[in-house]
Amino acid sequence: MTQPDPSQPRAAVIGIGFIGHAHIEALRRLNVPIAGVLGHEEGYTRREAAKLGLRPYLSLDELLVDPEVTVVHQCGPNDVHAGQNLRALAAGKHVFSEKPLGVSVEECERQLLAARQAGRRAAVNFTYRGYAAVQTLREIVRGGELGDVTYLRGHYLQDWLLYATDFNWRVGAPARETRAVSDIGSHLSDLARFVTGREPERVFARFTTLHPERRRPVGEVQTFAQGGGQTEPFTVTTEDQASLLVEYAGGVHANFELAQVAPGHKNDLELEVQGTRGAAVWRQERPEEIEIGTRENVRTVRLKDPGSAFTHYPGGHPEGYPDAITNVIRTFYTGLGGAGSDRIATFEDGLAAARFVEAAFQSHTEGRWVDTRQEVAR
Amino acid sequence: MTQPDPSQPRAAVIGIGFIGHAHIEALRRLNVPIAGVLGHEEGYTRREAAKLGLRPYLSLDELLVDPEVTVVHQCGPNDVHAGQNLRALAAGKHVFSEKPLGVSVEECERQLLAARQAGRRAAVNFTYRGYAAVQTLREIVRGGELGDVTYLRGHYLQDWLLYATDFNWRVGAPARETRAVSDIGSHLSDLARFVTGREPERVFARFTTLHPERRRPVGEVQTFAQGGGQTEPFTVTTEDQASLLVEYAGGVHANFELAQVAPGHKNDLELEVQGTRGAAVWRQERPEEIEIGTRENVRTVRLKDPGSAFTHYPGGHPEGYPDAITNVIRTFYTGLGGAGSDRIATFEDGLAAARFVEAAFQSHTEGRWVDTRQEVAR
Amino acid sequence: MTQPDPSQPRAAVIGIGFIGHAHIEALRRLNVPIAGVLGHEEGYTRREAAKLGLRPYLSLDELLVDPEVTVVHQCGPNDVHAGQNLRALAAGKHVFSEKPLGVSVEECERQLLAARQAGRRAAVNFTYRGYAAVQTLREIVRGGELGDVTYLRGHYLQDWLLYATDFNWRVGAPARETRAVSDIGSHLSDLARFVTGREPERVFARFTTLHPERRRPVGEVQTFAQGGGQTEPFTVTTEDQASLLVEYAGGVHANFELAQVAPGHKNDLELEVQGTRGAAVWRQERPEEIEIGTRENVRTVRLKDPGSAFTHYPGGHPEGYPDAITNVIRTFYTGLGGAGSDRIATFEDGLAAARFVEAAFQSHTEGRWVDTRQEVAR
Amino acid sequence: MTQPDPSQPRAAVIGIGFIGHAHIEALRRLNVPIAGVLGHEEGYTRREAAKLGLRPYLSLDELLVDPEVTVVHQCGPNDVHAGQNLRALAAGKHVFSEKPLGVSVEECERQLLAARQAGRRAAVNFTYRGYAAVQTLREIVRGGELGDVTYLRGHYLQDWLLYATDFNWRVGAPARETRAVSDIGSHLSDLARFVTGREPERVFARFTTLHPERRRPVGEVQTFAQGGGQTEPFTVTTEDQASLLVEYAGGVHANFELAQVAPGHKNDLELEVQGTRGAAVWRQERPEEIEIGTRENVRTVRLKDPGSAFTHYPGGHPEGYPDAITNVIRTFYTGLGGAGSDRIATFEDGLAAARFVEAAFQSHTEGRWVDTRQEVAR
Repeated sequence: MTQPDPSQPRAAVIGIGFIGHAHIEALRRLNVPIAGVLGHEEGYTRREAAKLGLRPYLSLDELLVDPEVTVVHQCGPNDVHAGQNLRALAAGKHVFSEKPLGVSVEECERQLLAARQAGRRAAVNFTYRGYAAVQTLREIVRGGELGDVTYLRGHYLQDWLLYATDFNWRVGAPARETRAVSDIGSHLSDLARFVTGREPERVFARFTTLHPERRRPVGEVQTFAQGGGQTEPFTVTTEDQASLLVEYAGGVHANFELAQVAPGHKNDLELEVQGTRGAAVWRQERPEEIEIGTRENVRTVRLKDPGSAFTHYPGGHPEGYPDAITNVIRTFYTGLGGAGSDRIATFEDGLAAARFVEAAFQSHTEGRWVDTRQEVAR
Repeated sequence: MTQPDPSQPRAAVIGIGFIGHAHIEALRRLNVPIAGVLGHEEGYTRREAAKLGLRPYLSLDELLVDPEVTVVHQCGPNDVHAGQNLRALAAGKHVFSEKPLGVSVEECERQLLAARQAGRRAAVNFTYRGYAAVQTLREIVRGGELGDVTYLRGHYLQDWLLYATDFNWRVGAPARETRAVSDIGSHLSDLARFVTGREPERVFARFTTLHPERRRPVGEVQTFAQGGGQTEPFTVTTEDQASLLVEYAGGVHANFELAQVAPGHKNDLELEVQGTRGAAVWRQERPEEIEIGTRENVRTVRLKDPGSAFTHYPGGHPEGYPDAITNVIRTFYTGLGGAGSDRIATFEDGLAAARFVEAAFQSHTEGRWVDTRQEVAR
Repeated sequence: MTQPDPSQPRAAVIGIGFIGHAHIEALRRLNVPIAGVLGHEEGYTRREAAKLGLRPYLSLDELLVDPEVTVVHQCGPNDVHAGQNLRALAAGKHVFSEKPLGVSVEECERQLLAARQAGRRAAVNFTYRGYAAVQTLREIVRGGELGDVTYLRGHYLQDWLLYATDFNWRVGAPARETRAVSDIGSHLSDLARFVTGREPERVFARFTTLHPERRRPVGEVQTFAQGGGQTEPFTVTTEDQASLLVEYAGGVHANFELAQVAPGHKNDLELEVQGTRGAAVWRQERPEEIEIGTRENVRTVRLKDPGSAFTHYPGGHPEGYPDAITNVIRTFYTGLGGAGSDRIATFEDGLAAARFVEAAFQSHTEGRWVDTRQEVAR
Repeated sequence: MTQPDPSQPRAAVIGIGFIGHAHIEALRRLNVPIAGVLGHEEGYTRREAAKLGLRPYLSLDELLVDPEVTVVHQCGPNDVHAGQNLRALAAGKHVFSEKPLGVSVEECERQLLAARQAGRRAAVNFTYRGYAAVQTLREIVRGGELGDVTYLRGHYLQDWLLYATDFNWRVGAPARETRAVSDIGSHLSDLARFVTGREPERVFARFTTLHPERRRPVGEVQTFAQGGGQTEPFTVTTEDQASLLVEYAGGVHANFELAQVAPGHKNDLELEVQGTRGAAVWRQERPEEIEIGTRENVRTVRLKDPGSAFTHYPGGHPEGYPDAITNVIRTFYTGLGGAGSDRIATFEDGLAAARFVEAAFQSHTEGRWVDTRQEVAR
């Protein structure tokens, strides 16, 4: 087995779509060398690698035997995550995986076990933890400024699948893998756990599908890319929308809404944490602000703290999504040589997300509250 | 029976608390003569009437036999509405009642029947219909600008009962009359029905009570007034918060949140109507704006239309809550002599609200979806 | 001379246009009896009085000899204010005058002198003082929360005269009476004086006229009413826009912008007071909020204080322009019997506004800084 | 003379402070190789270069003779720009210079001439052109959507020099080089020229200095870094604030405000362009939105267009300041091999800024309108 030098991390990126490019850009900002990239198909890999000025790997084997590669970035489609991540861990690589870690609880459990056995760093990219304000919100909540947490309100709404003519490989997922819930609900759920430190215990879900039939382009489709040309009917079994009532440890209740068909909502992720003394809300589309309300006739808006570890520009100089993902990846690489950080998501968090998703699906299917807790060694 | 002259309406106001004063001010703006007021107790009535420069009625009988009185404004506590409104109708008065029309479906059904038999105008003050922007939102939705309605998001959040030391007579209502749901949820439900023209068919409710025990002042309490002095423990059986999943006719889903313990939310009523082409949101705390989003990269904000029947000042001159209640009362009096208006709420709407409340309570109690439809002659 | 009873004030309103109606509505809310109204022409007066259910006065003489009338509300065109107000004072009436108090410094000085000699209450309706938040801003500034005041930023922008086809009698004012400066600049100037307690000492002004020629309807025109029909060319000598650099006592500088041709700005009045420790901004179109910024990474928004003398509804229940004007008139009547209030504008303030306007005109005309101070007995 | 290969640009960065690091990060995102860095002092250069993993240049000579270097990034203090840029051009390098291009019109004219003679690309980093929304605003304005441009409103307000104890080398500039005007006013002026395509013709300026004496740390100070330790009094001759009235070609007027002592304003740059049909405003602190107002009762907000050449992430994924500077540098390098772009600022634009600054200083000093136009070959 190759023994990459953890003091000299070098990345390889699997998957060269929207999110793969985002990883590559972040790695370059951080001056982490990139050994090469692997796409879903040889021709595509060669073309993209050439554009990027990077080495193309023509197979996972070729990537994994490269001793230069210390860290594997998993940016491929959801259904290949588990298999490829397990092989990467077996090859002694650290793994920085896109979410979802796997398409089932079982896939996630196996990866978590494998990572522990391999003794490798194993993280999941819940990007929104990378916003400085999210870290600040966590400190506000955990520091007790809001009193005891009592209630969570949240939503994650998008409109990129509004029309029946919108299509993407995600639409074709099997019903039980879910879509809105796993794609965006998992972000909201991770955010709630991260910020409050509480685990969901029960969930009641209602899913709705606005378009049970969509038009699918003949040929292939990329996320956020727009098609044209010929289409064919496609039966959709995954949900466009979901409402989730959740109960967390300690009697904390939550109401979450998810949709990929909500007109005008582009990437509208919002979490409000209510407590016995105050409430704080964070909105991804205005990411540098936290708004705090109390019973007093005052609303306070916490602005960017230029002194935070997750901010790199002065006040009033907006940092956004590319900076958030860079913060997550920076934190991962900073932790490689040592203790790691509890600020970014691990495979444990990836598993927690999968459990939440499965419980929601089961609740919707059976029309009842479902327990989300299952034992897992920690 | 006295025969008041509908062409010369004269109002009497029952209840001289916060909302009674709001009615009186609105009537004065409208130049509707006020015959007198009736409080809950003789001494109080005399004192308040003197301050207001109005005649005190010392009993309901005295008020009802006064032939000057054409219209009775019901602003008393919830549990007297039905009994007094029925007597007013029997005495040949028109009734303009505060919400809730009654504390049960049965009370509302009896009033509706009585009003029809008496042939009197019978309205319920769902104040928020009185905002010009709410009327505009209804036109936008019903005019098809958003496409087919698919989903409703709404909340009504307040913080005036945040602390265990906050108390009000409403807190002491029986569990089955509900509190957050009937006090503020009924507004949100009425708004959704009014704007979309759709009836709720099924509801799934979760109630939570942040403070199962509160401190109750020894003595009496007014809404929005602040106490002091001695208190005693009081066991609360009504809910502080509620989440409601609703299904409307035609496959429209909704997610509503209600709370009287949400820090920083003063009177935060918001409704978003999503359709197949666009979504529109109205927020009571910025009442003159409607924000419309679509898939395009444009958000439009519809501002006050100074030409609307519900606006009375030029653009940029904010009109607020006192203007909304004045609009409702103006519409009621305008309709007295003739056909009436479908712009304000009638006893039918009061009954619909009661059905929604009862179904929600039943759903919470039984942990299941409950049907809200019951036959009623129209 | 009639001796009205100050303990029983009764109002008469001169001028029945937009602002006259606003006075009448406010008086009714306040339960101040209205003796009658006087319009600019007999037929109009009779028609409007009938609609309002009020007595028509067919001449100023008829109004002034009515002993019922204690207070005269001056809501007529600017050029009649001085003459009519002087006659009202001479007849022993209190005067509540719309701004501007007069169209020249000289007119204002004469009225101020007359009011002092008559010993009558004499106020000018600078409406924006009537917002609770403006009163709060004044307390914040004067209480030292912002440190020493150093700088003022303000603007008052409207768009109702944007097009060359927009016309109003105000457009026809002589150049030296100004238009944007006297109509709206006087509000901003009064606000700055009121909030800071400082007097302007020097001004540098630049006026611009977007439309040196407009179309004037053949016939008469009302404020905020829209014409139609035939028009004729009209040469405009008053300014559509103005920029004013101002120096206040104590080295405080200001930059003010005014326009009646600013697209999208309906009634956009805004004042920011900057100090050595913080800055606070008030915006008329969101009248219940004051936003405060400091060097810290926190912005605070002061919301409505329901306990203030100028608020009458609970938090979250928006109060707007009609409430502001009611607050001003309430304060005037409250002060009638006694000491008066420094919360609303007096004839002294009306004179100060006139001096500011004249100095601005002179500065623009001569292209230089002009001193605004002139001695006046106080 | 070295002949760098323009098809293989390689950058060297002079100046390793806040803005130098921003350039380096942007270059890395863009995968432009960095040959090395040059700091103001040998020890500092070695330390920073080691941290960055880059080659230290210990002198400008050493940098300029390196044939690897194709492009020189000028990020040093303002007073070295001209001298070093001229030497870089003489050495055959392309120059990408921070603003101001020089500290006087004369310095800028010499550099412009030298760049033309050398036939090298010569750009100035007016970063705010790098926001996609700024490019969109320009298209909106030039495309005529607002009608004829009539008026500009703008401000650039910061608070990092609020206290007398705040210090930075910029504070020590000679009065005639100005401070607020050259540091931030030049950005606003460039933005106005860029967006409207109009040149300023006359300016009237008022400067104020809140702190004529500040405390200067004994030792050296970096921009946006916070000191501590010993201080000494320092007499300030540059302005903390400025108001600028400007007239542009074609009768367009402007009012600009600048301050580095405005509490709560972090990097508050805002420009509103008013026209005969509409007005559009862009705010740097919410950089992805353009708000458009017209006489209609509608406000529209143009959101990020993910298809623009200056956007790289989907709608709702905020891109901020680091992305803007990357866009500018990308555009510069894209243009290296060919025709160049009119989307970023050239030395011509740097010269225009210098003229504006000098005219403003002269106006303030002499208390009169000053002409900003002087002939320059184009």
